[in-house]
Amino acid sequence: MQTDLKTAMADMAADVERAILHLLPTTDLPESRVLEAMRYGCLNGGKRLRPFLVCQSAALFGVNPDCALRVAVAVEFVHSYSLVHDDLPAMDDGDLRRGQPTVHRKFDEATAILAGDGLLTYAFEVLADPATHEDPNVRCQLVAALAKAAGPHGMVGGQMLDLIAEHETFDLGTTTRLQRMKTGDMIAFSCEAGGILGKAPPPQRLALRAYAHDLGLAFQIVDDLLDIEGTEAETGKSVGRDAEAGKSTFVSILGQDRARSQAAMLAVQAKAHLEIFDGRADILKAVADFVVARRT
Amino acid sequence: MQTDLKTAMADMAADVERAILHLLPTTDLPESRVLEAMRYGCLNGGKRLRPFLVCQSAALFGVNPDCALRVAVAVEFVHSYSLVHDDLPAMDDGDLRRGQPTVHRKFDEATAILAGDGLLTYAFEVLADPATHEDPNVRCQLVAALAKAAGPHGMVGGQMLDLIAEHETFDLGTTTRLQRMKTGDMIAFSCEAGGILGKAPPPQRLALRAYAHDLGLAFQIVDDLLDIEGTEAETGKSVGRDAEAGKSTFVSILGQDRARSQAAMLAVQAKAHLEIFDGRADILKAVADFVVARRT
Repeated sequence: MQTDLKTAMADMAADVERAILHLLPTTDLPESRVLEAMRYGCLNGGKRLRPFLVCQSAALFGVNPDCALRVAVAVEFVHSYSLVHDDLPAMDDGDLRRGQPTVHRKFDEATAILAGDGLLTYAFEVLADPATHEDPNVRCQLVAALAKAAGPHGMVGGQMLDLIAEHETFDLGTTTRLQRMKTGDMIAFSCEAGGILGKAPPPQRLALRAYAHDLGLAFQIVDDLLDIEGTEAETGKSVGRDAEAGKSTFVSILGQDRARSQAAMLAVQAKAHLEIFDGRADILKAVADFVVARRT
Repeated sequence: MQTDLKTAMADMAADVERAILHLLPTTDLPESRVLEAMRYGCLNGGKRLRPFLVCQSAALFGVNPDCALRVAVAVEFVHSYSLVHDDLPAMDDGDLRRGQPTVHRKFDEATAILAGDGLLTYAFEVLADPATHEDPNVRCQLVAALAKAAGPHGMVGGQMLDLIAEHETFDLGTTTRLQRMKTGDMIAFSCEAGGILGKAPPPQRLALRAYAHDLGLAFQIVDDLLDIEGTEAETGKSVGRDAEAGKSTFVSILGQDRARSQAAMLAVQAKAHLEIFDGRADILKAVADFVVARRT
């Protein structure tokens, strides 16, 4: 299954990159510089985990793959914008992202701010377009759910907490909320998007939500472990930054051993939520194992 | 009429501020800091011209004022986000906005970046909510049109051009495109939003669009004039910055006298587009005169 998963994720990553190029054409006009920076910010060879979750959850309900791909790209635009802004000197001050110069290092800081703004804005234009789904009610639900997952009560709120974590020590409850907001809510949206697109009945939506919740936490615990155990060559980004900044993470609170077993337990639990789909969600189950086993 | 207009604008500004407070409640949780910065960034006593245009254009078609007010606030969120990011050190590096410290001076740079991101994201959540209009098709049209006006082919593209204008000399054509993108497209959306909400027939939408186009250009020419002729006490922001930065503006290209007569001509033209509404658009006509006569 892990080989199948790797092939499926690689195929999807190629589809996502083609769709990004198609949706972000550049021109000879001078303002096209911001489009180039937007492209650069989302064509960096990432794993495309979130787009994969969108497309796989949509496939459970027989959604047109072209429609799912548009939502997948919108999610990747929002994820990429968050990385571009997070890397800015006033935020995490990152020079490298997946081994390449970050957007503000490649272009400049002002262009990076605008490129992030442009990616975020364009994501909503893509979702609201009739090409994404024939039913405007579905499109509105997608817009509302993505905005909620990315906004001040989701990702942006999580990043705010993350900044505060540099000066304050958080307990396990606040650290869990931080991570749910910062990465969990966007992972949850990626899984729920398939259910919205496929007009899935409530029990199936709830199952996807529960799966995404456990998957997101497991993902973040492994991220924290890699920040300690990984190398820059493996992760393609600076490591050891959380400890350096004195941030509370799952690993600083639980210790490495308990954190690792917690991640493994969450993966088991995530897979159990998918039993409702019989064998049709095997690839999403494999994603849970992949997320816990990953080294990058 | 100018007295009526001032009263109507002041009433609307009060409604907008109440709606902002209602839509952005703060909490005791630490991440609420970003909500406080978002509030601060849009509760700065502005003229609320764009919300006024939304509500007045909606009134032409008998739209429920509460629905129009939600769209008006969404527009103000997007306008405010653009000011918060535009004031950042890497962009225009502004210390004061309407006589008050800018968001990154009052809070810090990272919080200002996140507050801008949060305002932009939340605007789309507000538009997509069923409370904004019962018809999801109308809500999708609003989301798509706002995203287009604010994105890389609208405001964000205009800001990119504005940054390039610091190093390159633009001709009148490129300067006009810069201003249409940077401020014109959001003003155009504000006027079109009423037509979308009211499901107005195409000729009336076109008339509003044409009005907004002329109004937006007149607005920008006056902005350029105030940067030369105004005082900081009047405008509440630093003046003389365009000339200092060597930027091409309508005034640097046309000269003060021709720029002033051009703005006056555009106001006449803007008002003429509203004849289709008989006397019902008198207050929008008064806005055109107000925009040209303003000193702040």
